[in-house]
Amino acid sequence: MIAVDWGTSSLRAYLLDATGGVLEQRRGNDGILACQGRFGEVLSALIDGWEGPVVLSGMIGSRNGWVEQAYLPCPTDTAALAGAMRRYDDLLPGRTLWFVPGVSTGAQHGVPDVMRGEETQLVGLIAALGDGDHIACLPGTHSKWATIADGQLTDFATVMTGELYAVLRQHSILGKLMPDDHADLDEAAFLSGVDRSADPGGLSHHLFGTRTLGLFDRLHAQALPSYLSGLLIGHELGEHRGSHATVHLVGSPALAQRYTLALTHLGVATQPHPEDLAAAGLFALARQRGLV
Amino acid sequence: MIAVDWGTSSLRAYLLDATGGVLEQRRGNDGILACQGRFGEVLSALIDGWEGPVVLSGMIGSRNGWVEQAYLPCPTDTAALAGAMRRYDDLLPGRTLWFVPGVSTGAQHGVPDVMRGEETQLVGLIAALGDGDHIACLPGTHSKWATIADGQLTDFATVMTGELYAVLRQHSILGKLMPDDHADLDEAAFLSGVDRSADPGGLSHHLFGTRTLGLFDRLHAQALPSYLSGLLIGHELGEHRGSHATVHLVGSPALAQRYTLALTHLGVATQPHPEDLAAAGLFALARQRGLV
Repeated sequence: MIAVDWGTSSLRAYLLDATGGVLEQRRGNDGILACQGRFGEVLSALIDGWEGPVVLSGMIGSRNGWVEQAYLPCPTDTAALAGAMRRYDDLLPGRTLWFVPGVSTGAQHGVPDVMRGEETQLVGLIAALGDGDHIACLPGTHSKWATIADGQLTDFATVMTGELYAVLRQHSILGKLMPDDHADLDEAAFLSGVDRSADPGGLSHHLFGTRTLGLFDRLHAQALPSYLSGLLIGHELGEHRGSHATVHLVGSPALAQRYTLALTHLGVATQPHPEDLAAAGLFALARQRGLV
Repeated sequence: MIAVDWGTSSLRAYLLDATGGVLEQRRGNDGILACQGRFGEVLSALIDGWEGPVVLSGMIGSRNGWVEQAYLPCPTDTAALAGAMRRYDDLLPGRTLWFVPGVSTGAQHGVPDVMRGEETQLVGLIAALGDGDHIACLPGTHSKWATIADGQLTDFATVMTGELYAVLRQHSILGKLMPDDHADLDEAAFLSGVDRSADPGGLSHHLFGTRTLGLFDRLHAQALPSYLSGLLIGHELGEHRGSHATVHLVGSPALAQRYTLALTHLGVATQPHPEDLAAAGLFALARQRGLV
């Protein structure tokens, strides 16, 4: 089978064998924003020469994607997601395509939350973890925190940590004291931000401290981005890490490093998982549906 | 005397009589950002024909202003601020200028906080309120919350509410679903944001709900800016309004309206004060110093 993880700014395809092993992997240059109206053309070129049913997940199934897919409400599981996959025989000549739905939650306090793509990574994680209660964090532009109980995705929440960091650095007064280039992580400043996040006053007050610490020369300009990152990640962890002994991290090594640093500082263990869990998740869904 | 309130993007001058009454008021077009290097020229033209010592407060005394003034640490009061004013006889030919210092706090948790200009409005407020324990909110780009006890400014905190609103609306994914024009306040959506701010999950999670409420058509595009505003102001109030029965509000009528709406919704009384309390504060400082 062919597994395709197609996000807003990334595109990865995997050719899998009958046991889910990765035979070949290809990366495209085109996230869905970059190839509006050319989805068939881009996919066709990327998987040229590969055989088998194509299963796709991620923002390719969003309103701005190829064919909009529904959201399955939480709690849900691998069987429900596989059962809700939709088949398309006419999108790409000679190919059978399957789209994975997104997942929504809205029970808590009546405000909906959504994911597209992460549910497939979580299916891959569930396959790896087995039964029991788990908490997983998928850090990124919009971090997702998911609770898993005996193979079921019970609830999740989105936190805008990565986007807030980028927007505040580029467009707010906080960025004015910072260097233009992406400074290396300053671990002491980062952890100082994590510590500060536990104080009273709230995120929007703590953020202003990034400026005053710079103005009063308490932190060097090079250290300010790390402090800001620590504040934002610290607030995220304070609200969402719950009381589990271990947090499962699914994300890039650079982000997993930051979250591990912060969580270790808070006395919580972390377990990193490969970023390309999507391939394992797409295989588990295809097998559940009887496609492989 | 001549009282000058010179901020980042605004400039107001008042000619005051011997009792602090406003004889005449003039507004300049130039905040300090717009007239770098031309401060003398701009001020000279604005107060042309007026007589008396000139007392200035606001960002004009900052690093990016005319002459950088120190910060006086909290707690402080009218006498201490008046005593720390610095006199300049050579900045503007034929004029004696006095600059009001800023105020800082840093005792709490070791992170400094600063104000420039608001301390002068608070001096004006203190003159109006008299003794007792009070809490004041000066909403704006960077809202200030100040606690006042028997004429002393005991502590304060800055919250980046206004800047976060502008930056998120203009530069984040939350703005994409919103109308370009400045929609009128939708009171129901605003209060729904205020209510949401009391839920668990934290600001950065609640912010994402602005997007999903739009995506799921739970709120119209025109109502989304009001919801975002309610979230941000709600978080600010939740962290800083304390337990006082009344919050004193010093700000524009439009902002005072929003804060009054939110605080009334939370069962807290508000008392609005004129935005130009700076003139009263500058007069109180000049009188304390023996200039009038």
